[in-house]
Amino acid sequence: MQVAVLAHDSFPDRAKTAVGLLRYGDHEVRAVLDRATAGQQVADHLPDVQDAPIVASMDEVPEVDALVIGVAPIGGGFEEFWRPDVRTALERGCHVLSGLHYFLADDDEFVELADEHGGKLVDVRKPPENLTVADGTAGGVDATVVTTVGTDCSTGKMTTAYELRDAARERGLDAVVVPTGQTGVVIEGWGIVIDRVVSDYAAGAVERLVETPVGMDLVVVEGQGSLTHPAYSGVTTSILHGSAPDALVMCHEAGRERVHGYESFAVPPPADYAGLYERMAAPVSGASVVAGALNTRGMDDDGAGDAVAAYSEAIDAPAADPVRQGIPDDLLDAIL
Amino acid sequence: MQVAVLAHDSFPDRAKTAVGLLRYGDHEVRAVLDRATAGQQVADHLPDVQDAPIVASMDEVPEVDALVIGVAPIGGGFEEFWRPDVRTALERGCHVLSGLHYFLADDDEFVELADEHGGKLVDVRKPPENLTVADGTAGGVDATVVTTVGTDCSTGKMTTAYELRDAARERGLDAVVVPTGQTGVVIEGWGIVIDRVVSDYAAGAVERLVETPVGMDLVVVEGQGSLTHPAYSGVTTSILHGSAPDALVMCHEAGRERVHGYESFAVPPPADYAGLYERMAAPVSGASVVAGALNTRGMDDDGAGDAVAAYSEAIDAPAADPVRQGIPDDLLDAIL
Repeated sequence: MQVAVLAHDSFPDRAKTAVGLLRYGDHEVRAVLDRATAGQQVADHLPDVQDAPIVASMDEVPEVDALVIGVAPIGGGFEEFWRPDVRTALERGCHVLSGLHYFLADDDEFVELADEHGGKLVDVRKPPENLTVADGTAGGVDATVVTTVGTDCSTGKMTTAYELRDAARERGLDAVVVPTGQTGVVIEGWGIVIDRVVSDYAAGAVERLVETPVGMDLVVVEGQGSLTHPAYSGVTTSILHGSAPDALVMCHEAGRERVHGYESFAVPPPADYAGLYERMAAPVSGASVVAGALNTRGMDDDGAGDAVAAYSEAIDAPAADPVRQGIPDDLLDAIL
Repeated sequence: MQVAVLAHDSFPDRAKTAVGLLRYGDHEVRAVLDRATAGQQVADHLPDVQDAPIVASMDEVPEVDALVIGVAPIGGGFEEFWRPDVRTALERGCHVLSGLHYFLADDDEFVELADEHGGKLVDVRKPPENLTVADGTAGGVDATVVTTVGTDCSTGKMTTAYELRDAARERGLDAVVVPTGQTGVVIEGWGIVIDRVVSDYAAGAVERLVETPVGMDLVVVEGQGSLTHPAYSGVTTSILHGSAPDALVMCHEAGRERVHGYESFAVPPPADYAGLYERMAAPVSGASVVAGALNTRGMDDDGAGDAVAAYSEAIDAPAADPVRQGIPDDLLDAIL
């Protein structure tokens, strides 16, 4: 599928979905929409993913099958200044994929345009209708189940999950990512956006996802949020217990000491945080933090190396920056 | 309001909503429907609440304004054998109140009967439409905020919240319960059933509830589930962080060592569990477990006294069985 990705004012650092699609997706991205960086190329910002031009609006996008909303603002609302681009895409007969809380299918104008021109509105965040409470059975999955957890939002949990998958595949193992967020669900074409699931069923939805892949050696569950986040900790906890992992990989951004967007709240030090994850996991599946992933974005290589070494020592486990360094053998060994 | 309460095969021990209504509600309960104990009286089982006859079906109920569904099976489904009673109630023009996941308003037969005879279908579990993510502001509430937390489901979190409220009122304080479950919402006439809220908004819904009462000295937040429950821990965590309490009261059932309905999972010992609640609370609001409530149902008075003393020692805080002993002064002192 050929797609354009909307990431206004956000590319690349605040456009997780756009970057995830460019890096791990099977779709051909023909343009990124960002009025702030229009005229540049994806490669100017991200040299190691598929390249595409950055344009100011849908009017400048070549023929595509779909427009993907590639940003996820806090709260998941629809920004009205995106409307002309969505309108243009629908008028051109494109599908529009969104992971927002706001459902495109609830927007009368979009529904009318989609009907008229034959495009589909795909709200990946809309959960299935038939979810149930967890049975507590995910611990019975044969594969090694690893869940990526974090010390905050946007620390690299999805990226780490994909890098672990790719490293395991390079070693000849059958490995899969269980997507629990909008980008992952867009990339994989299956999954459930857990933060949109009714609280009572959130762990049950994760359990169902973990039990879905068959014949795998390694199942990597994409975590969400963080265990002490003032707003999202319930989602994190549901994934931690619903996935009943064998092991945890803890993702942290170097130097982050305050909760992003909630600056009055401190992020506990990594060693404490790893211990808290383990104490919370213990009564359900007894998983330890066996490895760490450190996001060293913006640091030089020396600084990043020092930061990774310090992080590894703090959590007493192998660590790496998966984007900068890939997944070293000792880290993959630790989770298998 | 005069009501009948449906609690088939469940009264009193597995009918939390029915018992809560009888004990703490302002409604006059004119009958309890339970085919298993029909012919007996409420007072045969619960000597300290308002009395009412137990009957086999709605046909034997005197004139009432409403039928309340007083049981909450795991999963929150509607049992088809309840249908004749709901049908009869609607045919008599009664309202029907339900805290089930299954919404009466989605049932064509009930909608038709309600329309025809003038009764209303009230699904208290249906959350408001305009919820948002938490802002992290509940810590700014002037009143003392106490959240009741538990080592499992059905350990007495709602009961303890009401007993704390009543004890504080007896001391001349303005105190209120913030209801987060179906029984509390039915009793209070306001509140949000948190386990039905989309995960991303669960903490935000709790925050909104905690910030609603004005001019209070004490706000007691009704907790739900438990922090390490295989299915419901996400709900618990959202309430713990969304309510940003000043103090926690931990509710436990004497002798419970396995998770109810999930017997392959152990309940951690009370001392460990209190520590885990405190570690989880710390990064958001720094609350300690300042008191304990022990459910000693089924024990004799000596055994209960010993169990309360042991529980108090284990968690290093004043404790009581609020149903058997009320709220002692030292326990109320500890939370204020």
